[in-house]
Amino acid sequence: MIGRLNHIAIAVPSLEIATRFYRDVLGGDVSLPLPQPDHGVTTVFVSLPNTKIELLEPLGATSPITAFLTKNPRGGIHHLCLEVQDIHQAKDQAERHSLRVLGDGTIKIGAHNKPVLFIHPSDCFGTLIEFEEQ
Amino acid sequence: MIGRLNHIAIAVPSLEIATRFYRDVLGGDVSLPLPQPDHGVTTVFVSLPNTKIELLEPLGATSPITAFLTKNPRGGIHHLCLEVQDIHQAKDQAERHSLRVLGDGTIKIGAHNKPVLFIHPSDCFGTLIEFEEQ
Repeated sequence: MIGRLNHIAIAVPSLEIATRFYRDVLGGDVSLPLPQPDHGVTTVFVSLPNTKIELLEPLGATSPITAFLTKNPRGGIHHLCLEVQDIHQAKDQAERHSLRVLGDGTIKIGAHNKPVLFIHPSDCFGTLIEFEEQ
Repeated sequence: MIGRLNHIAIAVPSLEIATRFYRDVLGGDVSLPLPQPDHGVTTVFVSLPNTKIELLEPLGATSPITAFLTKNPRGGIHHLCLEVQDIHQAKDQAERHSLRVLGDGTIKIGAHNKPVLFIHPSDCFGTLIEFEEQ
């Protein structure tokens, strides 16, 4: 079912400082910041030859990563995104194995304008996993 | 400086259960377990089309991931491994920017028999980053 690793998302307290780190210290290929108010984050992509790192900074009062940064004030790896061919099949498979889909349990349109869902980290060995349909 | 994402390492309390999850629930291409006594872990690789997930279970009394699992008993993402062309250049660059190299600060031979070093997560926004020379 799972395909490519689409991205690793890292929540950071300051995109400006994190961008400098990934660009100037690690020599990464770093995008401009992209505010995504519908998703409560501003994103910066670090393009690697085979995948990407997505840096996330909270945007707005109800950002979904605020609680994570309160618990991890320095930042940290927030989730992995794995590509799937059919998000409905992925949802069926998750439910068949009693994995909890976050939120109201329905498929959403994610930050890349593709259908996504997130599985509860307690059901995946402490790892928040996003499925994104390609 | 940074190249491909070589792997994401996820520490788990039970490789047997995690292997079943990645193979039977997520449909991943999962290796046999490989005990690595020199590194204090047993590893299972989940091969993705563009990179791999490395599942880690503690091996022996002084495993380097025991403390992580005590703090995160369900498991969790332990580190990212980024490829570099020249590990000495990576070490110089890290030291030039006051990033702390873990352990005694020297380059080691890692679990894939290649030169590696780890940077302190506090210097990388809460993310433990491994550099591996290719």
